[in-house]
Amino acid sequence: MKDFRKVLSALRVDGKKKVRLGKFATDSRDGIDGKKAARAALDDNTRALAELQRKLYAEAKTAVLVVFQALDTGGKDRVIRNVFGPINPQGVRVTSFKRPTAVELAHDYLWRIHMATPAKGMIGVFNRSHYEDVLVHRVHKLVPAKVLEERYRQLNAFERHLAENNTVIVKFFLHISRNEQKARLQSRLDDPDKRWKFEMGDLTERKFWDQYQEAYQAILDKCSTGAAPWYVIPSDRKWYRDWAVSTILRAVLEKINPKYPSEIEGLDDVVID
Amino acid sequence: MKDFRKVLSALRVDGKKKVRLGKFATDSRDGIDGKKAARAALDDNTRALAELQRKLYAEAKTAVLVVFQALDTGGKDRVIRNVFGPINPQGVRVTSFKRPTAVELAHDYLWRIHMATPAKGMIGVFNRSHYEDVLVHRVHKLVPAKVLEERYRQLNAFERHLAENNTVIVKFFLHISRNEQKARLQSRLDDPDKRWKFEMGDLTERKFWDQYQEAYQAILDKCSTGAAPWYVIPSDRKWYRDWAVSTILRAVLEKINPKYPSEIEGLDDVVID
Repeated sequence: MKDFRKVLSALRVDGKKKVRLGKFATDSRDGIDGKKAARAALDDNTRALAELQRKLYAEAKTAVLVVFQALDTGGKDRVIRNVFGPINPQGVRVTSFKRPTAVELAHDYLWRIHMATPAKGMIGVFNRSHYEDVLVHRVHKLVPAKVLEERYRQLNAFERHLAENNTVIVKFFLHISRNEQKARLQSRLDDPDKRWKFEMGDLTERKFWDQYQEAYQAILDKCSTGAAPWYVIPSDRKWYRDWAVSTILRAVLEKINPKYPSEIEGLDDVVID
Repeated sequence: MKDFRKVLSALRVDGKKKVRLGKFATDSRDGIDGKKAARAALDDNTRALAELQRKLYAEAKTAVLVVFQALDTGGKDRVIRNVFGPINPQGVRVTSFKRPTAVELAHDYLWRIHMATPAKGMIGVFNRSHYEDVLVHRVHKLVPAKVLEERYRQLNAFERHLAENNTVIVKFFLHISRNEQKARLQSRLDDPDKRWKFEMGDLTERKFWDQYQEAYQAILDKCSTGAAPWYVIPSDRKWYRDWAVSTILRAVLEKINPKYPSEIEGLDDVVID
């Protein structure tokens, strides 16, 4: 079996050569020995992440921003539950970006995003993000090509600013196949407990499948930087997706290497009455 | 063993007769057969709460606001981690109210609180809350008695407003003994991984122990309503505290009885290409 570190680092878009989204698998099993091993590794990652989060919070020096993007049914909700669920909720803040409100639309499109960025010590999780503004807008040609090009640059500048100010950024594109989306939409229709998730609009957007692939390819091409890299996660298999995301995230946190601030002045002589 | 429902409902301040905080135990073991049984019941509650949260979120009709107050080392951080940790972080938002910022102080004291109240479908958890404004202010006589009296009324009016607008409120006072606080402060000093939590200010406030007990008693007396009841949780034993909070919370969610909205018009004839 291939070394998992090599497998996962191959999912990282390096921002050098032209991205061909079609070359990235949606159904990989590489780097881990099947579902059972992946679930065990996820549990192990969870324990490690919980401890790393405690230290990140205690140290309060670095913020972590985790961005999730995907087509409908790509698994954003579930991967957030499975990877971040077991971590102390006080240190994790999930923001789901929905259709912008009137007040939000009256500001520049990064206004609401900036307000939701994590504080030092916190892990901020974005379910959808600032990348929506170069997705729908591109697919449905809501803004001229020139504005789109400006936005890619603005997104990079914004992320660079965050990175230069103590925020570590990692971005995940959950990559599924057209057939897998069909199966998942069908299961939302068939399962009474999932019907509330079904939206007619999802079917409309599904007709633009190729355009969305192209729009994601442009994002990966233009907005994967050293400061804020994209990972393309094969997500047809849920257990593979969860394992890959948690393993990459663990590596990101381990690189930050947060520590409890134990060397605090003047505590050695304290007496408590 | 006494029925656990009776034990826990006795922890609820009914807002009728005068509260004597001294009558509430800090070290109870009532209603559950020891630590092991409490941990097993907590696991069971967690599974139930996770499912109830999914339905609450799907239904998106009711918000739940859970308030935690305690003296320093009372266990707010830990109970939040232990009870809410396993629940989908996308449906839970924890807000820790710290010393107000200059902008917050320039507004009325409920301004920042209102901004943090949960949306429909969400569980909002407050680590400290609007009650800080009748605690420190009372203990250190920062505002005249008349202003304090106005605040108790304002707090009740605010919570009534939330309750009348689809927010279910439950408030927990984590009740510890003076000796238990001493032991916990000492362990923060002794354990290098906990030292970052130690604050000299905690020792100063500890000198006002009796005044804080009195201030909490006033809160329980004046601000426990049908719409927003207080529970006094015996919290010297951490396993008892976690069990009691999760059991009460489960009952609150079960009473809301959220359901997946499965009856959605026009989905029966949908075909996915």
